[in-house]
Amino acid sequence: MKYDVIGVGNAIVDVISPTSDAFILEHGLSKGAMTLIDARRAHELYAKMGVARETSGGSVANTCAGIASLGGQAAYVGRVAQDQLGEVFGHDIRAAGVDFLGSPADASGPPTARCLILVTPDAQRTMNTYLGACVELSPEDIKPEDFAQARVTYLEGYLWDPPLAQEAMRKAARAARSAGRKVALTLSDAFCVTRHRDSFEQLIDEHVDLLFANESELLALTQTAHFEDAITRIRGRAEWVAVTRGALGSVVLSSDARADVPAAPVARIVDTTGAGDLYAAGFLFGYTRGCSPEECARLGALAAAEVISHYGARPEIRLGSLL
Amino acid sequence: MKYDVIGVGNAIVDVISPTSDAFILEHGLSKGAMTLIDARRAHELYAKMGVARETSGGSVANTCAGIASLGGQAAYVGRVAQDQLGEVFGHDIRAAGVDFLGSPADASGPPTARCLILVTPDAQRTMNTYLGACVELSPEDIKPEDFAQARVTYLEGYLWDPPLAQEAMRKAARAARSAGRKVALTLSDAFCVTRHRDSFEQLIDEHVDLLFANESELLALTQTAHFEDAITRIRGRAEWVAVTRGALGSVVLSSDARADVPAAPVARIVDTTGAGDLYAAGFLFGYTRGCSPEECARLGALAAAEVISHYGARPEIRLGSLL
Repeated sequence: MKYDVIGVGNAIVDVISPTSDAFILEHGLSKGAMTLIDARRAHELYAKMGVARETSGGSVANTCAGIASLGGQAAYVGRVAQDQLGEVFGHDIRAAGVDFLGSPADASGPPTARCLILVTPDAQRTMNTYLGACVELSPEDIKPEDFAQARVTYLEGYLWDPPLAQEAMRKAARAARSAGRKVALTLSDAFCVTRHRDSFEQLIDEHVDLLFANESELLALTQTAHFEDAITRIRGRAEWVAVTRGALGSVVLSSDARADVPAAPVARIVDTTGAGDLYAAGFLFGYTRGCSPEECARLGALAAAEVISHYGARPEIRLGSLL
Repeated sequence: MKYDVIGVGNAIVDVISPTSDAFILEHGLSKGAMTLIDARRAHELYAKMGVARETSGGSVANTCAGIASLGGQAAYVGRVAQDQLGEVFGHDIRAAGVDFLGSPADASGPPTARCLILVTPDAQRTMNTYLGACVELSPEDIKPEDFAQARVTYLEGYLWDPPLAQEAMRKAARAARSAGRKVALTLSDAFCVTRHRDSFEQLIDEHVDLLFANESELLALTQTAHFEDAITRIRGRAEWVAVTRGALGSVVLSSDARADVPAAPVARIVDTTGAGDLYAAGFLFGYTRGCSPEECARLGALAAAEVISHYGARPEIRLGSLL
């Protein structure tokens, strides 16, 4: 098999700035969530933000970088523009050891996507995404032969937002399934689930073998206020369901078992951006190597612990050295 | 007075990546130095570099950001292009609280400058600069009235490299001097001194009140192999001379005294990029407030200690909180 995991996602450069809770309040931002913004709002908010650093991001792209960092084989499909931020994204994903299969965007289209990320002193990240060139990702970007050669096809819920990407995701899922491969999905964000709940449910029932969610996303999907109720409702909807709960660790449901796995210790939590993405990286790395649900969750916790110890959503050390 | 310090420098976005000593050797890089590279070499080297982060840089721009972070009033003149990296540079210098006085560049010119910085495990930085739009900085960018309103005009030796910038520097120095203000210069880099030694000496003798150098730059300027010989030769060439010596601290020479000041303690040195720039920030902040040479050097050491404790050449905390 050529790849352990092939991912499809929104290709985004993160613009990260530490901030205060007062700034979040003053600018009416939705703390802890991902909010879509247009070019004008992105310009306005950027002008108000403090000094920033730019690092490549994008949820599934972060996961693919994590899998490569652990020693796995990963490929990524996403759309950037032919501009400086697109060059940064392409460089970083390739330098991480991931095959970047995105096709070149039309030079006249919108610029590469960016996510303005404000990190408060509690290490919580508040994300404001201008989708830019991501809206051009389309079914033509999905080459079925690539998906037939990957153990797992990994999709992000955020892909429901750009108009053509939903069909691209379905095409990728069908290509994977018809070749006998597995399909994994992350629900991405509670508001994203609320925006697209019906089609999320349809995709899960039709195509998804592994489902990743955090607690609030799971509650939004199952429309309940209680975690244990949500667990009961989601059980059996996918072969495996992994639910992350921040400092409380994660819960993995397989057909006949439930594993509750603690979070890995972190000396100082700086920026939680990418925690879920790197949990998925560790988990999928374990899954493609035949690990048990509990072992997969432990690998996820280990990878997440590294990424929340610094700013930025991709590993700063070779994660394989932690194994 | 409107400004404590007005700086003129190469406006650069840093592209920072940790690397190994083997990489430095393999690619024939000049460890610890700043090497000028053309667009093609920049493209080649970037393709070989690992995952990077982008942060705004530029020696004097870093110093101006440091002065603002300490609570001083700073302005900056430098040339970026109208592109995404130029937007990043402009945002970051303004967000740091510095007045960015650069004029907009011609859209058809070269792109915003970048510096590919490789940081080895010993925290040493090896810099490879593509000057891009910096070559367009010219005397027309220097508005004498801005320089008359600043206690200190601060210039970087790196400005000798772009062709039109030398005359811009002389114009800035003359504007400052004729208004009765002070002129400061950093020698920037030992190879830069070697490239331009005669005109450096001329500028120092004609216009410079405060001279900043590290040990190797001072040795290159004075053409001696021994630090104490170099100190003897440079003494009296400017009102104040501040020489940084890394972990050995700094030496400040004024007309009648010499102060040897230790480096400030750092728990873990991560990346020495910006150490000299932030030393100058602390020093000039003290100078514009009438501090003694020794006090200025202590402020410089304090600011430098913060910037070498993390990746990137600009402060990550408000330096004023350390005072």
